[in-house]
Amino acid sequence: MQFTSEQHLDGDILERRFTLDEIPGILWTPASPMPTPLILLGNPGGLGLDRMYPRLAARARSAAANGFAAATIELPGNGDRPSLDGVAQARADLRQALAAGESVSDDIVDRLVLPLVEQAVPEWQTTLDALLVLPEVGGPVGFAGGLIAVGIRLAVLDPRIVAADLFAGSYVPRATFEEARQITVPLHVLLQWDDEGNDRQTALDLFDAFGSKEKTLCANMGGHTGVPQSAAESGAAFFARHLK
Amino acid sequence: MQFTSEQHLDGDILERRFTLDEIPGILWTPASPMPTPLILLGNPGGLGLDRMYPRLAARARSAAANGFAAATIELPGNGDRPSLDGVAQARADLRQALAAGESVSDDIVDRLVLPLVEQAVPEWQTTLDALLVLPEVGGPVGFAGGLIAVGIRLAVLDPRIVAADLFAGSYVPRATFEEARQITVPLHVLLQWDDEGNDRQTALDLFDAFGSKEKTLCANMGGHTGVPQSAAESGAAFFARHLK
Repeated sequence: MQFTSEQHLDGDILERRFTLDEIPGILWTPASPMPTPLILLGNPGGLGLDRMYPRLAARARSAAANGFAAATIELPGNGDRPSLDGVAQARADLRQALAAGESVSDDIVDRLVLPLVEQAVPEWQTTLDALLVLPEVGGPVGFAGGLIAVGIRLAVLDPRIVAADLFAGSYVPRATFEEARQITVPLHVLLQWDDEGNDRQTALDLFDAFGSKEKTLCANMGGHTGVPQSAAESGAAFFARHLK
Repeated sequence: MQFTSEQHLDGDILERRFTLDEIPGILWTPASPMPTPLILLGNPGGLGLDRMYPRLAARARSAAANGFAAATIELPGNGDRPSLDGVAQARADLRQALAAGESVSDDIVDRLVLPLVEQAVPEWQTTLDALLVLPEVGGPVGFAGGLIAVGIRLAVLDPRIVAADLFAGSYVPRATFEEARQITVPLHVLLQWDDEGNDRQTALDLFDAFGSKEKTLCANMGGHTGVPQSAAESGAAFFARHLK
């Protein structure tokens, strides 16, 4: 992990850009004399890190307000990263199905999402290895955001993840449903009830499938990008309970 | 309104029992030099005020921590109040349907719930008239708890109610669905996802029907009586946003 630049946010949050195995990322650490818990900020994909930056920085500020560090990395195939085999074709097939008013097949969803999951999960784990070596970053670790299929597999595979705040997204591979049943960590799940680009029933079915004994569904109005501030606060309170 | 007894909770919350037109009730007011907002604590029915007291007092403490007064009254047909025409028969019919493994008909639900709603809503309004005359109680006013059909009609009919925190219950009359579409105030809706005595799909359909532009569904595990502390805190934060 190589730090490439640094600046301060709001005076006391240190923001450092890094690269790790050519993957760009950002680490935010609050001023703290002790190693802090860490929240991994997942990127939903589609927008690269640069365009997502304002939203990610806002979430990092919220994490820092609770005394937590936060980190994010560019998803495979996003931003300036090389495109993934088959995903462009899957995206074209998705657009064609939507334009024709057809339902999106499981096959398209698998080809669209699974290559990302396959590559992103080990990248997150390598990033976590590198972050937890830093003296200012401790544990426990939470995962927040998207892609939901990435967050689910990471929470199932990596015991360092002790809580996850997931954004219910549209296209969920069948394999992800199976993995959802294996999750045991506490979950906070955001659903935008009136998100026209999202299949509400899929999100409800996925919430039902999660194996965790402690899970909260926080559903709100406001459309895909209109998550209300109260939902962000509910997520922050969730991590405050579980990362301390 | 006649106050019949008083005591202090935690030193600085004044708890006064009252009767109004022979209906027993309880008012909790925090120590405050100013008139405070008020939360009406709805009783889900079934248990009378005395058996519900510990839960109601806990909610009144939470309200007082935000600087809010709280009040509750005995539902018609509950506690020592006279039984309502037809409700005992409807309850017997409900038990018989459940024992036989039959679905509960709309007719049974109407006979079970609507007489309560018809009588309870004007009683809440009379209570509110009397409470708002007190110099220590101001506005705005919120409604919290059950019976959900009572909370919905009260929120539709009485413009003094500016926000409601509703507990999604099992048996929802068809008329209540129609009223739900007319609600415009911000809503916070609690659903116990694994509540075996509750029909989840009815609760989701009702949440969808609410006309309010601002509505939050907060669904959790823990069964019918296992609402987690985090959900209570989410409801408290909801009122803190809307009653100030």
